[in-house]
Amino acid sequence: MGTRIQAVYRVESDAKSIEARARGIAVEQSVEMPVAAIVSRYVLDEVLGRLESVEDLGGGEYEVRIALASATTGYEAGQLANMLFGNTSLKVGITLSDAVFPDDIVSAFGGPNHGLGGLRDRVKAGGALCATALKPQGSSPAELAGLASAIALGGIDYIKDDHGIADQPYSPFAMRVPVIAEAVAKAAAHTGVPTRYLPSLNGNLDAMRAQIVLCRSSGLDTVLVTPMLSGLSAFHTLKRENPDMAFVAHPSFGGLSVAPSLLFGKLFRLLGADATIFPNHGGRFGYSEDECRRIAHCALHDWPGVRPCVPVPAGGMTLERVPEILHFFGRDVMLLIGGSLLSAGENITRETARFCEAVRAHE
Amino acid sequence: MGTRIQAVYRVESDAKSIEARARGIAVEQSVEMPVAAIVSRYVLDEVLGRLESVEDLGGGEYEVRIALASATTGYEAGQLANMLFGNTSLKVGITLSDAVFPDDIVSAFGGPNHGLGGLRDRVKAGGALCATALKPQGSSPAELAGLASAIALGGIDYIKDDHGIADQPYSPFAMRVPVIAEAVAKAAAHTGVPTRYLPSLNGNLDAMRAQIVLCRSSGLDTVLVTPMLSGLSAFHTLKRENPDMAFVAHPSFGGLSVAPSLLFGKLFRLLGADATIFPNHGGRFGYSEDECRRIAHCALHDWPGVRPCVPVPAGGMTLERVPEILHFFGRDVMLLIGGSLLSAGENITRETARFCEAVRAHE
Repeated sequence: MGTRIQAVYRVESDAKSIEARARGIAVEQSVEMPVAAIVSRYVLDEVLGRLESVEDLGGGEYEVRIALASATTGYEAGQLANMLFGNTSLKVGITLSDAVFPDDIVSAFGGPNHGLGGLRDRVKAGGALCATALKPQGSSPAELAGLASAIALGGIDYIKDDHGIADQPYSPFAMRVPVIAEAVAKAAAHTGVPTRYLPSLNGNLDAMRAQIVLCRSSGLDTVLVTPMLSGLSAFHTLKRENPDMAFVAHPSFGGLSVAPSLLFGKLFRLLGADATIFPNHGGRFGYSEDECRRIAHCALHDWPGVRPCVPVPAGGMTLERVPEILHFFGRDVMLLIGGSLLSAGENITRETARFCEAVRAHE
Repeated sequence: MGTRIQAVYRVESDAKSIEARARGIAVEQSVEMPVAAIVSRYVLDEVLGRLESVEDLGGGEYEVRIALASATTGYEAGQLANMLFGNTSLKVGITLSDAVFPDDIVSAFGGPNHGLGGLRDRVKAGGALCATALKPQGSSPAELAGLASAIALGGIDYIKDDHGIADQPYSPFAMRVPVIAEAVAKAAAHTGVPTRYLPSLNGNLDAMRAQIVLCRSSGLDTVLVTPMLSGLSAFHTLKRENPDMAFVAHPSFGGLSVAPSLLFGKLFRLLGADATIFPNHGGRFGYSEDECRRIAHCALHDWPGVRPCVPVPAGGMTLERVPEILHFFGRDVMLLIGGSLLSAGENITRETARFCEAVRAHE
């Protein structure tokens, strides 16, 4: 008997239809054909999705648990997403709300190369981590390097490219990364904080591989990825090919009907995100406190064989909110303040230093 | 002055907040930082998203049009999606409903290698096309080849792998494809209909490239792709690298808050889908007639420099519905009946022939 993934769906339905709707998901996410027309015993026993339970949540919502055969994933990242939610993502009123993975899936995908501990070690930190983003796109490599230097002089831990900074003519990846890396390294030598610069990988797998080579030759060991844009397979391939690299995941284009805690917390972690960025409550996005708590929990909770992934609440955060965010998430966190820090203009170094002090003072 | 993409969003809002919410999207999808803190004239003029119009649709919904600088896409598929909807996909109550692409974007991506005309030529058809899918996953290569042969003997145009059939141990791609291709070729020689078998590409870019090589050496010239699983960049790369190949796009994992007509119709076509599969109204999915009409329109409408892409309504279609579907979509269509055809069991060849006759009789 092969192992099974427990997939959990939240389904809008009336009481009369829920049983059929639930069985429909089990079929859709496995054999996708009339069960009566299946003749193979093997397919019926080992491939067909199995409806485990239906729970009435009230208000016309049900929680449906389905056991999906791990073998159907081929232990490949894109196919894993296909089996969890491929066609069902197109159905109205159904959210993929959680998944529980058996050991063979966990060991096949393996989780973060470095995780929380590794990201702390890189910057010799013990508690919460501080991060910001280089913006706006349209800036030249020299402008971005100047900004990165001013921020690094404030003693921050991580500086990432804005996820919109890709490989545009006004700032080609190959021209931008070495000069920003050098500017940050110089500033880090000055402050004593080993600030890391994270370029945003983009394009197809060939392009991203070449970008990682360039990052390494520029002395970098941590990068930003956007798994929903690059493709989950490409992300997982890069993670596996580059055990020295740490990967921070950006949620861009991730607005599927998949619970954010599953997608950005559990799934990105399983595939190898060392840290995962998500929209914090109270910012520009509509995420609730509960949702953010669940994301952080999925990223961090004890998971044998999988390193913890650093939750990175972001999206319209400000210096004033630092104590509140730390109170909410605790010390296993990376705080990411982008645009608000940039509003400091010429005082960016001082503002960055204030941000870092606020985070480190909290410990 | 660089060109601009017109991106159209449907936004839930009250009258008081809509202006700020609309400006927020323009910022989020371009510079993603406080505009007041931007000093560069170039960024303000040539990179910052420009709010073009806000239209009250009634019922608390607004249509917001924003002009996004084409240069920010770097003319790369993943980054195109990032700029259209990256972070905004995470915002509650906002749908990306349409996009209008300027000439430089169109010529950079180029659309289908073959399109409607090419897919008709491959099977010497003049009107609507007939297709089905091999199922269920879990079947062995020999079982799938037997099924494919029986279907091909019915004279069908296209037979695709079920999108769940990937590279699993029970039916590895490299073992499955040559034997199915041979079985279909034999049956096609018998019927005189040049039936095409479409393997489902899966895995990362390396894997898919190797799969295309194998397809070509098995005499195949058309394949199935799932752009939302493979990544848009990987799909577009394959399209560009293989001008002899036709690509049929599957919508799996596409349940974003992006209008299906834009994603499966316009965007997949722009990136090169020769045909695009989508859930027809009245099947297992909740798509409306209007939505399906819009998808077909986006796939087919006159678009200088971009071949028409074949709309493929699917998802729980039956033989009985053929006349109605043809009446609805006209002759520029491929009809895809999967599971219902398989219910015919031993009569699959006859049932397939009936399906093809129904489609061809309609012309």
